[in-house]
This record gives sequence, structure tokens and C-alpha cells, in this order.
Amino acid sequence: MDRIGENMYSWAKDLFPINRSITGPGVRETLDYLSRLIPDLRILSIPTGTKVFDWVVPDEWSVRDAYIADEKGERIIDFKKNNLHLVGYSEAIDIWLELDELEPFLYSIPTQPDAIPYITSYYKKRWGFCISHNERQALPVGRYHVFIDSDLKPGVLNYGEVVLPGHESNEVLLSTYICHPSLANNELSGPVVTTALVQWLKGLKNRRYTYRICFIPETIGSLVYLSCNAKHMKEKTIAGFILTCVGDNRTYSLMPSRKGGTLADRVANYVLDTEVKEYVQYSFLDRGSDERQYCSPLIDLPVVSVMRTKYGKYPEYHTSLDNMELISPEGLFGGFSVNQKCIIVLEHNYKYIVTLIGEPKMDKRGLRSSLGATKKLDKSVKEMMDFYMYCDGETDLLQISQITGINFFRCAEIADNFSEMGLVERTGR
Amino acid sequence: MDRIGENMYSWAKDLFPINRSITGPGVRETLDYLSRLIPDLRILSIPTGTKVFDWVVPDEWSVRDAYIADEKGERIIDFKKNNLHLVGYSEAIDIWLELDELEPFLYSIPTQPDAIPYITSYYKKRWGFCISHNERQALPVGRYHVFIDSDLKPGVLNYGEVVLPGHESNEVLLSTYICHPSLANNELSGPVVTTALVQWLKGLKNRRYTYRICFIPETIGSLVYLSCNAKHMKEKTIAGFILTCVGDNRTYSLMPSRKGGTLADRVANYVLDTEVKEYVQYSFLDRGSDERQYCSPLIDLPVVSVMRTKYGKYPEYHTSLDNMELISPEGLFGGFSVNQKCIIVLEHNYKYIVTLIGEPKMDKRGLRSSLGATKKLDKSVKEMMDFYMYCDGETDLLQISQITGINFFRCAEIADNFSEMGLVERTGR
Amino acid sequence: MDRIGENMYSWAKDLFPINRSITGPGVRETLDYLSRLIPDLRILSIPTGTKVFDWVVPDEWSVRDAYIADEKGERIIDFKKNNLHLVGYSEAIDIWLELDELEPFLYSIPTQPDAIPYITSYYKKRWGFCISHNERQALPVGRYHVFIDSDLKPGVLNYGEVVLPGHESNEVLLSTYICHPSLANNELSGPVVTTALVQWLKGLKNRRYTYRICFIPETIGSLVYLSCNAKHMKEKTIAGFILTCVGDNRTYSLMPSRKGGTLADRVANYVLDTEVKEYVQYSFLDRGSDERQYCSPLIDLPVVSVMRTKYGKYPEYHTSLDNMELISPEGLFGGFSVNQKCIIVLEHNYKYIVTLIGEPKMDKRGLRSSLGATKKLDKSVKEMMDFYMYCDGETDLLQISQITGINFFRCAEIADNFSEMGLVERTGR
Repeated sequence: MDRIGENMYSWAKDLFPINRSITGPGVRETLDYLSRLIPDLRILSIPTGTKVFDWVVPDEWSVRDAYIADEKGERIIDFKKNNLHLVGYSEAIDIWLELDELEPFLYSIPTQPDAIPYITSYYKKRWGFCISHNERQALPVGRYHVFIDSDLKPGVLNYGEVVLPGHESNEVLLSTYICHPSLANNELSGPVVTTALVQWLKGLKNRRYTYRICFIPETIGSLVYLSCNAKHMKEKTIAGFILTCVGDNRTYSLMPSRKGGTLADRVANYVLDTEVKEYVQYSFLDRGSDERQYCSPLIDLPVVSVMRTKYGKYPEYHTSLDNMELISPEGLFGGFSVNQKCIIVLEHNYKYIVTLIGEPKMDKRGLRSSLGATKKLDKSVKEMMDFYMYCDGETDLLQISQITGINFFRCAEIADNFSEMGLVERTGR
Repeated sequence: MDRIGENMYSWAKDLFPINRSITGPGVRETLDYLSRLIPDLRILSIPTGTKVFDWVVPDEWSVRDAYIADEKGERIIDFKKNNLHLVGYSEAIDIWLELDELEPFLYSIPTQPDAIPYITSYYKKRWGFCISHNERQALPVGRYHVFIDSDLKPGVLNYGEVVLPGHESNEVLLSTYICHPSLANNELSGPVVTTALVQWLKGLKNRRYTYRICFIPETIGSLVYLSCNAKHMKEKTIAGFILTCVGDNRTYSLMPSRKGGTLADRVANYVLDTEVKEYVQYSFLDRGSDERQYCSPLIDLPVVSVMRTKYGKYPEYHTSLDNMELISPEGLFGGFSVNQKCIIVLEHNYKYIVTLIGEPKMDKRGLRSSLGATKKLDKSVKEMMDFYMYCDGETDLLQISQITGINFFRCAEIADNFSEMGLVERTGR
Repeated sequence: MDRIGENMYSWAKDLFPINRSITGPGVRETLDYLSRLIPDLRILSIPTGTKVFDWVVPDEWSVRDAYIADEKGERIIDFKKNNLHLVGYSEAIDIWLELDELEPFLYSIPTQPDAIPYITSYYKKRWGFCISHNERQALPVGRYHVFIDSDLKPGVLNYGEVVLPGHESNEVLLSTYICHPSLANNELSGPVVTTALVQWLKGLKNRRYTYRICFIPETIGSLVYLSCNAKHMKEKTIAGFILTCVGDNRTYSLMPSRKGGTLADRVANYVLDTEVKEYVQYSFLDRGSDERQYCSPLIDLPVVSVMRTKYGKYPEYHTSLDNMELISPEGLFGGFSVNQKCIIVLEHNYKYIVTLIGEPKMDKRGLRSSLGATKKLDKSVKEMMDFYMYCDGETDLLQISQITGINFFRCAEIADNFSEMGLVERTGR
């Protein structure tokens, strides 16, 4: 695992306390932190009120303080202790209420009495506090001072972008979101794993594809991003991965693209089948992240998510229990590894065509015994000959791997050897 | 069931005694009766001797009287009691025969000793009588007077046609046959269910498709009909249904088209799968009605039969036991309903394409809570979003229903709502 | 079985003792023998040193004598007793060696102590002797006289070819190999079964396809053959069969083409499914004969092998136990029959299209009772009508046979009858 898992975990620890939302200073602070890890990360902004398809970029939100205090002035619920206490996008208020008047503004989960829920109201003005059900039930009758010092006013929506050029102008998309406050698996795991992937990609020799990586707020951010780049992305994207819920250490999961069967799906299934073996294959009907935008009919990108435990499928999801103890260096490294493997497979997944009719003469190249008619070929020679037989210019390495049962990376190795010997040639994508 | 089942049953009762055949006064009497229920039914005719593909329209047949009497003049077998007694298209005769001379002209079913069989000889001159096996065995030795007062002479073959225009010139074919004498499930159920469908179709608001409905004698009638309309039908027919054996109350059955998978097959399977659940899926190799002509290779129309118990698959088939007790208002209404549902599905089975990239903003339209990040969408909102995701201009509502598991009619409802909101648009067929 | 099985067995018996290899007098002697059975067999040659794709035609090899003698001059291992004793393509030598010096030049099979292995070294100069493991272990310590009187010098590679023209210029390929010394199933069965097929094909009336038959040394021979004929064969070959391992009487086996599903595959599967029922379906990954060349990507011919027990899959394979007792007249006749059936199916596998809309009137042609409305059609009439329904100009007889369940040859018979009556017409391939 070398240092990568530890690094990712420590980045997540640094970022965890920040009060992120779809706009505001928490997003900028997060992007600033990431730009120290990815020096060429461009931080972009789009103003409040901009129409993006069916949506409009909302006001920018910032919070200085927020609490509920009792009659003695003691803060019973304090945003500064846990930013989940405040409903996201709460407007300012300063009011005294009786407990029964306060109740409609409190959110808790009776079935998870220790957890603070995560609630937002981006597009309707509201205020509210989230609280554990135990705390809620212990609130004595009385008067409470509700105080929120927040702003909701025209500003910008920020996002980060980095494009790493490759030999080919065809692109691989990596997209993750930076709008969740103190939540760990969903969603600091995505940004830190993506950051580690970018660092690795920058060092990748002979990068084949161009990589487009974006750090955006979920939903409105992917819509903003599409509104700026849809035509280009539709033309160039050959595969894409949404990085979300890649930090716990329980299982692996795959969210397919809208109709399945794209290159991204094939690669993801191959990597999970061979590297992980047991994982949960979801249906697109289970979708819930930015594939809702990237895979929507008019854009329909080949985008999947290779996750650890999927959002909505673990009990801590969208509560204060999705914290730094839920994720781990090992969990993050697992999430990193499967997505990295997908990229490596993509980079090597060429089609080859043989250069001559018939089998190559293997013994003259030292690849086979010159003693004929023995009963069985070496496994290694057998793999080479099987590989060769499907280099027909139409079958890509992933498909050859599936037809022959030869591991993909072994196929890629044979392909390299055979290319050097002039026995096969790469064909167009 | 309202009144429709009772109406159909009473029409069948009125029509039951008529001596129908492929030509002759019984056919005309039947068409006259139906034209009182369908005022715009056109009654057409084609003369004896007309060549239709490999066939020739035969002489017209009419019968005034037919019986076998004993030496005392008592009518032992009397066409006037049951028109099945006379072999269809029997020529005239007036002769005295000994019992053993008579035997070769008698038809009975030893394994169904109470049943009079239904026998015809349209294309070879013959005469004969059908009789229950019990009666036959009770015939005493002696002389018998065989008397048939019938005509076989040039005339016409009649059939009825009504075309109900729709917004589209594309057509749905409904075809049924009117050539069976006193037989109930096969075949008065077809004409009466078709009549009820026509009455319903005439009242259908905003009819999408044009409906071509024909009441014809089986085989020669469909060939005649094709000889007049093949080119047009091949060009326009998007689905067709042969109405036969739709009156008993035992099971449901489907005869597919020649190669299956047409729109008619898909619709029929959907309706039977969802409305009836258990039914018998036959193979085209089991065919036996006018799909033999409509689905033949050079014309190959997308025609199926959605039946109750299929011809040839119930013991009473083609005997006097296929009578008014075999069918019922409930049985007929079941046959009516499944065919009606198929038409309703067809009428709504459009393809839609979304009008914008990304998801629509549901809360601003009051379709979703403005409170974000709760764990699960309402079933209704989830259905809307799932539906939306497959409006790609290529996938029809039936396919969306199958992919998403959302009931077809719910899909149609969402499609209407979304169309009104301008979120989706219909695309060409 | 008539005389064919016996004939093939006696030819194999005559040919068995000859010292065949990929070149040399044994090949010529074999081709001479075959040309007495196939008078128009052309014997061709290509000189040593000719480049064929990635290969080069090697020197010609001939052997006059070869033995290992003990100190008393007694021949302990004698090529004249069994030509398998000498490693194929052994160079000349005349030397005295101690037993331990001799050991590296001896080949035996510890797990099959009675069998002499079959070893060759076509492309690297070597010498060696093959010996049963029992004999080897009984060799006393001492000095041995190793003597090989052989030539390895420029000459030719020979092969035989016969082309039988048909109505169509499209070709069926039969290919077998003549390079194995005294080995029976693999490979004298191939040449003798092929010879019997050629004799039968020459007498075949109205031969539809052109038959290209070649008797070649394995691998280098098929490469030579392709180097002369690839373009023509790629254009014309509609199906091909490699005749190998067609002489034992244990099982039947099929080696498919590279990607499967070709006409050759469909025909072979049909014949084996219906005539043999139980057989071993191999994968192309199990390939091992000239499909390695014929099916290689740039040529990719539709070539399969319909075998008895496959090479490499029986214990006697490539040893002296693959002798005349392993094969039999019955075994050879079985191999002959399945390949002959494949050819017969190919010859009859046309597509037909009906000439009219609707069903033909069967009774006027005496093909059906004129008495209508009886419960069931005769099996024979039912088959005719079912066959007719799929004569759509796109579905070949093999596919009609599969859809309808009617035996292929019955389909062909109906097709002939219907063609004569003008009800159907053949369409292009």
C-alpha cells in the first residue's frame, strides 16, 4: 500500500472540519487545500443566477455562527461543534421560541438516536437544526434562543478542474464532489482518492488518453460543468468515473452507465471481476450521484462509479456517523486501487492486427522448443499463440482476455512483445 | 364488466342459429345483423371464379332444406334442427339408400359419441351428413330417404369492412371470421368481440392509429382481402389482431407472429404478462387461423391472436358442443378486455426524448420535496425520474416499462405530465 | 457400410509402413499411391528455401538406414523395424558412444513404457532415437554404434491437389495431411477418408459447389498452400473441413472455426446433433491442426474439423500405439459418413422464397384432403405447410430445419417438390 493510503487519510482529516456546501467559503477553502496537492488545479467560478439547463445557480451561502441556547445562555446545539447541526443553506435568524414552537425546525432520526442527520435546503429558504434523537428527547420544556448568523446572497459557485493531456485527444473523465460538510465516506473519500489519482496520472509515462478531472458540487456542479463542456465531452469522452464512497473497507460496488456495456462498464467489470471478485453490481435504477446528469439522455456519457460501499447502502450514510472512523487508509487505498486499475486497463486496451497470414514461427524467435510434436505447449507459449489468433483488428484486449481466459495484463505484455517483433500492429481505437 | 359482456352474449345468441358458410345467404344475414350494430360497416362482394393468389373464389352455396328420413317419412337427421348436420357445401340430392349404402356419407366421432362433428367440403363436390356417434349406432337397418335441397352456383363471396381513420395513417388490423355455422367459441366470439371493439373504438377520443376491421370468411376471405389490400396493408400495418376463440372462460392464449418480436407481439405479451399473468404462449408452428395468410412470407404482417382457449385445444372444438353454453358474458368480456388493452397500449406507445441535458428541477414544479439529502425518494418521484432517464428518443414506452419495472400506464401518465411541462417531446414512431 | 470402410482400411494398411515426413521420398510415395486412387490428383512441389509468410520451406530429408547397434554389432534399435525410432529430420551420424553419452539423444515416455514416442526436429539440426521406456531401461552399460545414413539437402516440398468443379464457383475445402510416418489415426485416417470422399464426390450428380481438396504436410504445407491460393480461397471458400483423426471408433468431436457460427460450424453441428447426438464440442482454444493456419486472422476461413477422437485426447496419440489396431473399417466409415453428410447438407442448403402471398391450395395438388375442418393435419402436410411458412428468401434450409424441427433432408425433399410445383424458388446463396 506504500504511503498513498496514509496520505489520503491525512488529507481527509485536514478537510473534515470544513463547512462545505454547494457554494461558499468552505468550497473555496477545500479547493485551496487541494490546489496545494495539485498545483495546476484551476479554480473556476460561475455567478449566482446563471441558468444551467433546467436549473439556476443559487445564492452563495456563508455561516459565521449558529446555535440554539437555553435560557441560561448555554449553547445546547452548536454549529461550531459539528457543522451537520445546521440545515444546509439555513437563512439568518435570531429569535426566542418555546420548545413546541422550535420542534418543527428540528431534524432527527428516531431509528438512529445517536446520529445527527445531514439535511439541506438549497433551493427553498428555510432554517433548521439537526440533532441526535436522544438529545432531542432530552430537551426540557422552556424557551430557546435560536441564532443563525448566515448570509444568502449573490456570489459564485466554485469548482476545480485539471486537464492532463495525453497522446490522444480522447478523454477519460474523473469527477468527484466537494459539497458535503463533515462527512467522510460520502464525501471526502472521493476528493482525496481523486487527488491521489491525479498525482499518479501526472507521473504516468506516455499517457495515452487526455484526463479531465473535476472537483465540483454534486448535481448543480455537474450541470454547471456540462453547461460549459457538454459538446466537447460528448465528442471526446471514451470513459468516465465518478469518485464517490471510496473510503470504507467493507465491500466494492459498481454503478453502471445508463444502458450498460460501454467501455467504462466493460473495464470496471473486468477489474472488479479479476481483482476483487465479490462485489455488488447495482442497476442504473439505483443511481444517486452525478451519473444522474452525465448519463442523462441527451449527453449519455459512458460514465460509471466504482465504489466501496455505495451511498444509501450503509447505515451511517448522511449522518454524523459517516465520520473519520468509518473510512481508513486501507479503505481509501482499495478505492484508489480499483479506479487506478481501471485507468491502467484503459491505457492498454488497444486493438491489434497480425501482420501476416498463418502462425508466426515461434522457435526461430526462441519462443518455443524446436523439438516438434510433443504433446503439449508450455502455458506461456500457448498464451502467446491464443492471443495471436484473436489479433484481428476488431477485438480489443479486454475482449481477447475474456475469450481466451488470459489475464488482461498478460495480454498487454504479449501485445508489447509481439509489437516489437513486428508480428502485430495496433489499429485505431 | 358493465353491459358489454351481456351485449356481446346476446348478439351471439341472435346469430347462433344462422347457417353460415364461406359464402351464401347466412353470411349476408350475419353481416346485415352486424351492420345494425356498426352502421358504417361496408358489405363488399367478390364474384365466384375470381382468382386470388393460388385460390379461386368458389360457387355460392345455399340450402333450403336437408334431412334423412326413415321409411315412415320421419326425419331422423334434420338440418333445420342443427345446421351442423349437413356437411358444408353439400350438393343437392334426393335418393333412397340402404343403411350400408348411406354409411360412407355419414360423419361422427366415436370418441365423442354425443357430439355432432363440423365438416365442410368447399372445394370438392360432395354431400354428407354429420351425426352423433350414439345416434349413428342406433340407426336401424332399412331404407332411408336422403334429401338435400341446396344450390351450388356462381354468385359472390361477401365480407364486411370498416376503416376508422386516426391521426396517423398507420393502421391496426382487426380481423375476424364469419363463416362458421352454429358454433359459439369458434366462431361467434370473434365477430361479437370485434363488434364491441369497433363500437368502443368509434368513441375513442383522439384516436391515434387508423383501424382497419374486417369480417371475412376464414382462409379464402383473408386471401380475398389481401388480394384487394396487400400493398397498402404491408405499407401501413404496424400491428394486427385476429379475433378468434375469445369467448370461453378457461384460460388465455397467444399465437405469435411468424418470427415473433413485432410490436403486436410485444404489446400482446405485455398485456398478458401484466393483466392475466398465466397464459399459454403458443408457437407459430401451432398456427391455424388467418395468420396462415397474413403472416405468410411475402406479406409477413405483424399479426397475432390474443385468445381465450385456442382452437383445437378444447374438447368441444369443431363439434356441436361448442355452443352457447361454452361461452359466457364473462368469457367474452375477458376476450374483449385483453384485446382492448392491447389497443390502448398501442395508442400510448410513443417514444419520447427529453428536451434538456441533465435532470429536470423537480422541486420547482412541486414534484419533489425541496428538502434535500433525505435518504429515499418517494415512489412516485422515483418513477418519474426513472422514466425520464430513458426518454432518449429510441426507447418506446413498452421498453421503458420493461427496463424500469414501472407499469405501462403509469409511464404513459408520466409522459403526459412531462410533455405538458415541456420536459419531454414525442418523437416519430 | 458397403465396401468403403474396408477399402479405406486396406489403403491405410498399404500406406502405413512408409516413412513420411514433411518432405522427402515418403511423401512422394504416398502421393503416388493416392494418385492411383484419384487419377486427376496433381502432385505439386515448391523448392527448399521458399519463403512462406513467416516460414521457410526446409531442406528435403531422406533416410536410407538408421540404427543403434551394440558392441557385437546387433541392431538394438532399428529404423527399418519402425520408422518412429528415428527422430524426424535427424541428420547423418556414424559414431560410437558410451551409454551415458547416448542418453541425451534418446526419447521415451516413462508413463507409457511400451510406447515409442513420435518426435521431430524439422527446423533445428539434431539427431536422436525414440524408444520404449522399457527397452531404454534394459540397455546395458557399454558402447553403442550410432548410425544414421540420411540426407538433409535442398530439394522440394510436395503436396497433392485436386479441384472438382461444380455449378457454382464457390468452394468447399477439404484438407488433410500426409506428413506422419507409421501412425494410423493421426494420420493415415485423414488421407484415406479424404480419398474416399473424393471418389464419392467425383460421382456426385449435379455437384453444386466446387471442391478444392489438398493433401499436404501439416503446418508448413498449409502455409505453402495458402501462399499460393490465399486470395482465391478467401474469396471463394464457403466452408472447409480438415480431415484428421477420423479413424478410431470411440467418439465424435468437433473443432469449431475461430469465432464459430460460420456455415461450416452450423452444418457440422447439425450433422453431429442429428446423426451422432453425443459428441465432444471443443473450443478453438483447443486447436492443434491446420485450422491454426486456415483460421488465422488475416485469412480467417470458415474451416472446422469433424473428427472421431481428437488428437491429443487419446492415450495412443503420437506414439507407436497409434497403429492399425487403433483404427478400423467401422471407425473410418464413421469418420467418412459424418463428413459426407456435412457435404450433402451443404449441397442442399439453399434459401427459398415463396412465389405467392398466402398458403398454397394443397388439396388441388393432391397434397391434402379436400374435406375441411378436421381436427389435425397429417404430419406430412403439416411439415410441408411449416416449411413453406419460412421460405422467405432469408432463412436457409438449416435454419428452417432448426425453427420447425423438421429433419434437414425432409426439408430438402419438400423444397424439391415445391420447386417443381412452382410454389417456391431458390434465391442466391
